[in-house]
Amino acid sequence: MTQTLHFAEALTPEGFQRDLFVRVEDGVIAEVGAGRPQAGAERIAGLTLPGMPNLHSHAFQRGMAGLGERRGAGDDSFWTWREVMYRFLDRLTPEDVQAIAAQAYAEMLEGGFTAVAEFHYLHHDVDGRPYGDLAAMARAIAEAAKETGVGLTLLPVLYRQGGFGPQPPTQGQRRFICDRDRFARLVEESARAIADVPDATWGVAPHSLRAVTPEDLAFAEDLAAGRPIHIHVAEQEKEVADSLAHNGLRPVEALFESASVNARWCLIHATHLTHAERDRIAASGAVAGLCPVTEANLGDGIFDGAHFRERGGFFGVGSDSNVEIGVAQELRMLEYSQRLRDRRRGRMADAGASVGRALYDNALAGGARACGRSIGAIAVGRRADFVTLDANHLALVARSGDAVIDSALFASSALPVSEVRVGGRCVVKNGRHIAKETVAKRFAAVMRALLD
Amino acid sequence: MTQTLHFAEALTPEGFQRDLFVRVEDGVIAEVGAGRPQAGAERIAGLTLPGMPNLHSHAFQRGMAGLGERRGAGDDSFWTWREVMYRFLDRLTPEDVQAIAAQAYAEMLEGGFTAVAEFHYLHHDVDGRPYGDLAAMARAIAEAAKETGVGLTLLPVLYRQGGFGPQPPTQGQRRFICDRDRFARLVEESARAIADVPDATWGVAPHSLRAVTPEDLAFAEDLAAGRPIHIHVAEQEKEVADSLAHNGLRPVEALFESASVNARWCLIHATHLTHAERDRIAASGAVAGLCPVTEANLGDGIFDGAHFRERGGFFGVGSDSNVEIGVAQELRMLEYSQRLRDRRRGRMADAGASVGRALYDNALAGGARACGRSIGAIAVGRRADFVTLDANHLALVARSGDAVIDSALFASSALPVSEVRVGGRCVVKNGRHIAKETVAKRFAAVMRALLD
Repeated sequence: MTQTLHFAEALTPEGFQRDLFVRVEDGVIAEVGAGRPQAGAERIAGLTLPGMPNLHSHAFQRGMAGLGERRGAGDDSFWTWREVMYRFLDRLTPEDVQAIAAQAYAEMLEGGFTAVAEFHYLHHDVDGRPYGDLAAMARAIAEAAKETGVGLTLLPVLYRQGGFGPQPPTQGQRRFICDRDRFARLVEESARAIADVPDATWGVAPHSLRAVTPEDLAFAEDLAAGRPIHIHVAEQEKEVADSLAHNGLRPVEALFESASVNARWCLIHATHLTHAERDRIAASGAVAGLCPVTEANLGDGIFDGAHFRERGGFFGVGSDSNVEIGVAQELRMLEYSQRLRDRRRGRMADAGASVGRALYDNALAGGARACGRSIGAIAVGRRADFVTLDANHLALVARSGDAVIDSALFASSALPVSEVRVGGRCVVKNGRHIAKETVAKRFAAVMRALLD
Repeated sequence: MTQTLHFAEALTPEGFQRDLFVRVEDGVIAEVGAGRPQAGAERIAGLTLPGMPNLHSHAFQRGMAGLGERRGAGDDSFWTWREVMYRFLDRLTPEDVQAIAAQAYAEMLEGGFTAVAEFHYLHHDVDGRPYGDLAAMARAIAEAAKETGVGLTLLPVLYRQGGFGPQPPTQGQRRFICDRDRFARLVEESARAIADVPDATWGVAPHSLRAVTPEDLAFAEDLAAGRPIHIHVAEQEKEVADSLAHNGLRPVEALFESASVNARWCLIHATHLTHAERDRIAASGAVAGLCPVTEANLGDGIFDGAHFRERGGFFGVGSDSNVEIGVAQELRMLEYSQRLRDRRRGRMADAGASVGRALYDNALAGGARACGRSIGAIAVGRRADFVTLDANHLALVARSGDAVIDSALFASSALPVSEVRVGGRCVVKNGRHIAKETVAKRFAAVMRALLD
């Protein structure tokens, strides 16, 4: 199928271009030509940006957004929040997960994310036994992606143990646990489950250094065979302390010790690092998978983005717990957390540059790399994923060029999106997902049944 | 004029009440009675909260939202941002200010703020000379409040000098400067300018310790005569250093030295404090006027809210630079900045309590005190300012009680508002300000003329 789109203005690797004609063949950009009118082209007003990849999501957690905001009896932390999360997922069925994931994905698309890397660890039935269809939960994710149109990188998670030691899994973790054989089958069946999701791909995700051994890590690398590998690392100070106590190494040191960390890797959070660890990640080409809203919500701490960017490190953003979903929210929180720490402004841009543009460009490149798909730019060979900003939005009025991106990210709570296309297909019109009503209604019914 | 409202559910000082009937006389709550049906009552679905006061705004800055996000040639800071702001206000006319303020106030109402304390320092004509109508700019603010319906506390600002020393005002400050006589007249005429804005009041605002002398401060206290007094204090580390160099005292120490700080005072920002200074503010009954979004945007630093709240200090929130406007955005950023610093969750609530509810209740009380008006609660004698949340919003589905507030603040980018009433008058319906189109159109025209 061929489409020709005529963008009033679009951001390409060569910069902003007016009256840009783009030919799309089967969802992929086949030709990009400025100012050469083509018959039958569909005109798209406003400024169009490449759609942003969301490099880290636990979709089902959208259903518990806000439910962890009651302070515990004692001190509240990531670890007490995790207990709330374990209780929430206790009863979820594949149908529930599909309904919640579809809601999360529709919100992602409305918020400017056109692709998601789903870090998928809720594998088994409520009693911890595998479903008859081992990939039943992966299939739920695939269906949600297909229904909403978001681009998918499915990352089945290898979760072997409850903590360093190894500690046995807790009751709350029973639905995550796989031995290696079962995990290999799960990956194989998950790959089949996404076969009919347009342009979807998969990778593997050893959960964290506390949940897998170095041998598991090697096993996961083999399984990935060149595809993306994601891992949670150094999110919490306790994890750093536990790692040091376990093997005398900090988590990132331990990871580099046991794996060949390279551009296929995405290190999620990577919050608590020494300068040397940060430099090592930057030099490896691995992506730092930052989740600024969730990291603020969970009280994780502040990634030193200013330092990492100066070293040429790749980073992207993820909505992680999905407590709040949107490109502007994540990029803004990333910059603001740097500012609050450094008591300076303009942390994530070079001198003289637009902060919004620098954030957006960097997160596109890092996000595309982490998702392992040909996305993240309006250029030949990339997927036709476009986010068009509403030129009439009051935060953007009389702005042009980079200033549109600055104002879209900093002067509007959410990205002022008018239209979103994924693989050329329009899935958000006038700021609303095309299946919003259906998806929302099912989500609401599932939530009422779960929470009542 | 008498109205009777029937709230499906409302938050009163006694807690959540279902089927609450409220009688409003001339914009003021005259009777609150649960479950006694009254003829002709207008039913309001969803959960209704007391409208939130916005205790600090520079309305005109809404027009430059996002324009300060280009990193300077050197290090970027509050002080470089201030230069951008001075250039932006260089040519503004009273008509421009009215148009921009109306836009800001309409957005405040949509975001859950029903009252604003306008810290108003743009007094004079473009050449620095007073307008023929000395209160021309105050009148522009009053008109914007009247047009949008937001409750107003107008705070004419006394700005005497460019910095400690004293330093003479810079060119960028020429439109702010008043001597004491002119300021007294300006206050008098400003009071007249707001006479026909429903329930509006006024106070005075010595700009900061760098912009006024101790004698000016005493003069301002006299003028206020029991009304609110607001002052910027300890926003920036440089201000602390300059104050110490000037008189050997930190800003808050200097303020307590020269003024009788009490519950009439609102100390804006108060970011850089010693524990002793924070304790002293808490004990005085003065309100800490926090502006979390702006303080993040400007790289000011993090107020120690967790400590201040434990000491029983009053605080409220303000949208300040109006780079982003909304109750949820401010309260969330307040809590998140504490979490990022402390690496713990639930900072602004007692053990076992809802964080959202604690933030909301505290900011209501502090905001009402700072605005010097009878607002901030659904109770007899208070202004009938109500914010109703959209019960069908997906972030709120199947939540009840405090969990609704938690999810409204943390799981939705903006407060999911369906309806807003100020003094009983409905000014936001279905989440949109009733004059949105008119206000927006004029704002856009003004912005195009200013930025083109």
